[in-house]
Amino acid sequence: MDAEHKFGVRKLEILDKSKGFIELLQQLTICDSVSYKEFEERFQEISSYGDDHLICVIEDVRSGKIIATGSVFIEKKFLRNCGKVGHIEDVVVDSAARGMQLGKKIIEFLTDHAHSMGCYKVILDCSLENKAFYEKCGYKQKEVQMVKYFI
Amino acid sequence: MDAEHKFGVRKLEILDKSKGFIELLQQLTICDSVSYKEFEERFQEISSYGDDHLICVIEDVRSGKIIATGSVFIEKKFLRNCGKVGHIEDVVVDSAARGMQLGKKIIEFLTDHAHSMGCYKVILDCSLENKAFYEKCGYKQKEVQMVKYFI
Repeated sequence: MDAEHKFGVRKLEILDKSKGFIELLQQLTICDSVSYKEFEERFQEISSYGDDHLICVIEDVRSGKIIATGSVFIEKKFLRNCGKVGHIEDVVVDSAARGMQLGKKIIEFLTDHAHSMGCYKVILDCSLENKAFYEKCGYKQKEVQMVKYFI
Repeated sequence: MDAEHKFGVRKLEILDKSKGFIELLQQLTICDSVSYKEFEERFQEISSYGDDHLICVIEDVRSGKIIATGSVFIEKKFLRNCGKVGHIEDVVVDSAARGMQLGKKIIEFLTDHAHSMGCYKVILDCSLENKAFYEKCGYKQKEVQMVKYFI
């Protein structure tokens, strides 16, 4: 099996819960264990948006583990002549699988999806340390992100 | 009629197209004129998300014109224990109606909506010039926004 096949990008599937998907997200931020019921409910909620909310993953078929993921959702606007914008979120590559361009593959997959959905742009927020990575993916810095936490 | 009533925040209605809603967005960015059919289709698409995508407006009841608007949509995640995040977009106040705290009212309305929907945080992107305004609304700078344009 060639490397291209081994590390192909595909949509999240409901069985990925048992392949370390949640554990991978825990490398990104706080993410306590999620029950199968909670996972399935959220999976169905997101699936109900169809192509307007896509979560993709890379599975290492040798280990059966999910080693990279990212998501994009399509926002529908009135401005820009009823335009659409892709929002990329929750991009993470397993710390043991760095240096194989998996992050770049994820970003390209999500960016292509936004483009194919008719978006006029795609945006994301990142730390200053990750800025150079996104520049290599063809992104440019624009504004600043502001946040308000409720918890 | 007191000022509070005159400048109340409410949800976007389909009749707001004829009250200058699109012209207001043109003060924010490129937004060619939109036909009634296009407006109605996009309005129905966004409405189909229910409380997960809210556009609010302030109408000056004396002039019958929309003088402020903003939107928030609720993103459903797996991380943060299947958490939700509010994304605020497309905030604009009519240039002739500045200095009346209408922007702050819009942000408070959208922030309260995200909170009531169970979001653990709400985020937005803004220019450096607008950072101080959002700080007055209780927001703090966090990351940098990256963008890729398709057109």
